[in-house]
Order: sequence, then C-alpha cells, then structure tokens
Amino acid sequence: MAETDWIAVDWGSSQLRAWAMGADGSVLQWVSAERGMLTLAPDQFEPALLELIERWLPAAGVVTVIACGMVGARQGWREAPYCQVPCAPLSARQFVMIPSHSEQLKVYLLPGLSQELPADVMRGEETQIAGVLERQPEFNGIVCLPGTHCKWVRVNQGKVTGFQTFMTGELFALLAEHSVLKHGMNDPQADTLSSSLPEFLSAMRSAFEQPGQLSAALFSLRAQGLLQGMTADEARARLSGLLIGAELAASQMFRADEPVIIVGDSGVAELYAEALQSLGITPQRLNADAVTLAGLKAARSLLGI
Amino acid sequence: MAETDWIAVDWGSSQLRAWAMGADGSVLQWVSAERGMLTLAPDQFEPALLELIERWLPAAGVVTVIACGMVGARQGWREAPYCQVPCAPLSARQFVMIPSHSEQLKVYLLPGLSQELPADVMRGEETQIAGVLERQPEFNGIVCLPGTHCKWVRVNQGKVTGFQTFMTGELFALLAEHSVLKHGMNDPQADTLSSSLPEFLSAMRSAFEQPGQLSAALFSLRAQGLLQGMTADEARARLSGLLIGAELAASQMFRADEPVIIVGDSGVAELYAEALQSLGITPQRLNADAVTLAGLKAARSLLGI
Repeated sequence: MAETDWIAVDWGSSQLRAWAMGADGSVLQWVSAERGMLTLAPDQFEPALLELIERWLPAAGVVTVIACGMVGARQGWREAPYCQVPCAPLSARQFVMIPSHSEQLKVYLLPGLSQELPADVMRGEETQIAGVLERQPEFNGIVCLPGTHCKWVRVNQGKVTGFQTFMTGELFALLAEHSVLKHGMNDPQADTLSSSLPEFLSAMRSAFEQPGQLSAALFSLRAQGLLQGMTADEARARLSGLLIGAELAASQMFRADEPVIIVGDSGVAELYAEALQSLGITPQRLNADAVTLAGLKAARSLLGI
Repeated sequence: MAETDWIAVDWGSSQLRAWAMGADGSVLQWVSAERGMLTLAPDQFEPALLELIERWLPAAGVVTVIACGMVGARQGWREAPYCQVPCAPLSARQFVMIPSHSEQLKVYLLPGLSQELPADVMRGEETQIAGVLERQPEFNGIVCLPGTHCKWVRVNQGKVTGFQTFMTGELFALLAEHSVLKHGMNDPQADTLSSSLPEFLSAMRSAFEQPGQLSAALFSLRAQGLLQGMTADEARARLSGLLIGAELAASQMFRADEPVIIVGDSGVAELYAEALQSLGITPQRLNADAVTLAGLKAARSLLGI
C-alpha cells in the first residue's frame, strides 16, 4: 500500500467511517465501524479512531485527520461551534484542531452550520454541500439531503444562504416500528417499496395537496388495514408517501422553482426523486459517499496543507 | 354492601376498570387493574375479569356484565364487529353476548364504530358519546375526546354522523420520549405545562396557522434548544402546542361552527380547552369517567333487562 498522506473521516451519530488518502487524492483503503458519536464518551473518541486507522499510520511523522459530522457536537469529541448562514459551507478558520494524545495525529473537526430564524442546525451535511460545489462550482439552487432528518439547503454563489430540516425519516421509523401503525406494517428494513410505487405516489400526492391533514391521514392507515384489508406493503408505502408528500408541500416555498440536486442513492433518496418527478421536477442525483469525500478533500485544500 | 345488580366494565388497551352497580343505578364499588387487552390472550379475559369482580357476585344467580373498549377488538376477548356510521352510538342488536365458562356471568361486549371514507374506527368512545347523549339528549354538535388517539365526533339527532381521529397523543409520546427531541425535553410525565401556558399557546397558534410546516417546526425545537437555550419545560410545552395546533387546523372544516363538548379532565383535555378558547371557541367540559359510566348504563337500558 502506498503511504497514507492524510485521513478523511465521516463521524456520525451511529457510524464512524475513515478513508486513507494517497498524495494523489486517491483512496488507498477505507473502513467503517459502529462507533458513532452516541456510543462514545469524550475520552473514547481518540482510542476509537486509533483502533481503526493505526495500521495506516507511517512508522514516523504526523498525519492530518479531517473529520466531519456529529463528532463535533457538544456531546462529541469536542465542540466545533456552528458557523451561521449565510456563509460558505466550509471555512478553514472555523475548523477546530484537537489536542490529541498520540503524537502522530493532527486532528481537525469541521463545524456544522446554524440558522437563526427559523432556528435550524446541521452537522455533516455542510461537508456534503462543499462536495457538491467541488463537483459543480457554478451550481445555484437547492440541495436535498434525505436521511433521518432530511435537509433542504439553498446554495447561492458558493454560499449556503438558508436551510430547512424535516424529521421525516425519524417520524417514519417511530411510526412504523413503535406506534399503533406497526400492527399493519411489515418489516421496515425490507425493501418492498419498488413493488408499491403507485401506492407511495398516490399517498404522496394526497399529503402534498393537504399537508395539514397529516395526523388524521396517519390514523386512517390503521383503519384501512382493519376495515379494507390494506396489505402491510401498501401500508408501509402509504406511510412513506404521506410523510414525504407533507414534506414536499412544506418545502415548496423554500424550493421555489430552483434546480434540485438530491444527494444519496439509498431507497429513500430514490423515493424523493420519484416524488419530485411526479410533481414535474427532475432532480439531479449525486452519490452521497462521493460528495462526502469530495467535501473532506475540499476541507483539506482549504487548510492549505 | 347492597347486592350487585349488574357490572359495568371499561376495558381498554392497557387498563381494565369495573363498577359494581346497585339496582338503583348507584355505584356500590369500583376497581381497576393493569390488565388491558394488549396484555391478555383470548382465553385470559374471563379469568382476569373474574379475579377482579368475583367478590361482588351474589351467592347464586346470574349477573350481567356490560363491557366497552378494546376488549371487543379482533385481538380482544372476542370480536364485536363495528357498526358503520351514520348510526346511534349504541344499538342493542349489535351487542355481542359471549359464552362464558362461569355460569354466574352473562357478558355483553359493545361494538365500536367505523367510517368508510375517510377510513376510521373507534372502540370505547362510542360508549362515551352515548353517555354524553344520556346527559344531554338534545345535543347536536361536536364531541372532542382527547387521548392517545384524539377523536372529533359529529353528533346529530342522537346519531354519530362522522368522525376524525388524530394520532396527536401518540405522536407527542413518541417524539418526547424516543426522538432526537428527547434531549431537550424534561420528563413528559411531570405536569409543568401550567407554568408554560404562554409557550404552549404561541406554538399552538403558529401550527394552527401553518399546519403543513409541522415536521420542520418539530426539528426547529431541537435547534432552538441548541442555539437559543430553550428550556426543557418550554420545549415540552411547544411540542404539545405544535401538535395540538396542527390538529385544530386539520379538524377546523370538520368542526364547522358547531358547539364543542370536550370529554375529559386530564391535563391534556385542559390544553385542548385552553387552545380552543384562545381561538374564540368556548367548549363545554364533561368528566370522562362520568360519561363512560352513563354510556354503560345507557347500554344496559337498551338491553331492556
């Protein structure tokens, strides 16, 4: 293996992922572990990281580590205070260098972004936005980042000018696994949505048209299971459709008519793309890992090392 | 103790409550236990009931038991098929008599109500509606029954003509206890809302005006905790306000301008009353236990025994 030039890290709530980067910008190796921020006390971050990357370290000399995500939250390794929008997604003078015990590591945490009104925050997605801009420096428009907390981010002339977070993914998981609706659902891990796309789109459109009726429409899923024998696959597709439809209605003003990029290639990103398409919007799609890595590379360039 | 004439039972998902009734309609004794429908297999219902009421049974002779609630669900003691609205809240010919092992019991289950479009169901609340009508036979208007699944029920000339269920209570519990919002909340059991009424009402009004923004407004609670130091009491009051405000907006068309009765005297019923009042609607309040018992008495009269 060629010598590790620096190490890129995406450290979220539940997962830690690291890439050993070559001097030519190529990925030499990568690794991931279930050592997310939520599982670690402040003094456990460095050992958890070292355990994963020790074999990549050269015999001598210091290696730069650049990490984004929840690792920089108040409950993380150390707090990297938010940058307030409007601002560039990454600003080198806001990066936080952490004193590490190992003399071989020089660790930088990337801060998240905050918005005062309406109050909102992100950690990790700012790096993906930087990656999007690395790929498409001229992009002006909306970046949609589906996930547990889906973000809609407005980008203008290289800056993030505003964003809006929806709890759609978390609501889906809570409702499908822990609410009365679970009785009519199948395993929310199983990917059966492709066969239920018409049901997804019909529920999506109904919630898009009447987003304020969401909490009544949710209970109706239960009643349709009891009264009309709605199948578990259909119930799951409709639940997803209702939540995403309400989100698309609520983000409509924010989106205006600007071009949309969806970051992600998971099943849920696919659903956002299908939903937007059925509303007459054709989003561009970018791979999530690719933009994360591009963003971490952009951070390294900003450091000028 | 005077002799038990019959036994009234309210048997929900999590609780079993029974009243020993005298021949003059008075309550001789009552008892409750955490033996709800969800904790019992079909053959465990009769033993669970007997354990509670055995001491009320006379030395000889048969005692009528009238039970409402989830005990009549498909997963309950035995299914009491729904009556479809529009219909009276209780119809004696739809009551289901259950063959019991004990020769001393004659058990009737009261069926719930269903609505075809939009699909909806209730079990237990129909008995409370019958109780409301027992108290106020001339009432035409809307009955609001707050709880895990809040029901808004339209009553006209003694019949239920339509209803709408909201998952507000369940959403509150899931979000306050299991979502990312729990980090900024205090114990949702603690009754601190009285001190946070202004925050509750301000969030309620904002969601009432923009119900479609609910899922973005929810995440903003988390961000306000992180950025603006919102207290846990305030976060909890605002969460409750957002959910109830969205419900009041969504039920607005259904309510029209009809008079509203709120069934319940719990903290959450109090919040619905405060919210309606701040929107210019003065609801009447009725005690939940009193209308349940009045409904069970009405069922007994309908049986003509």
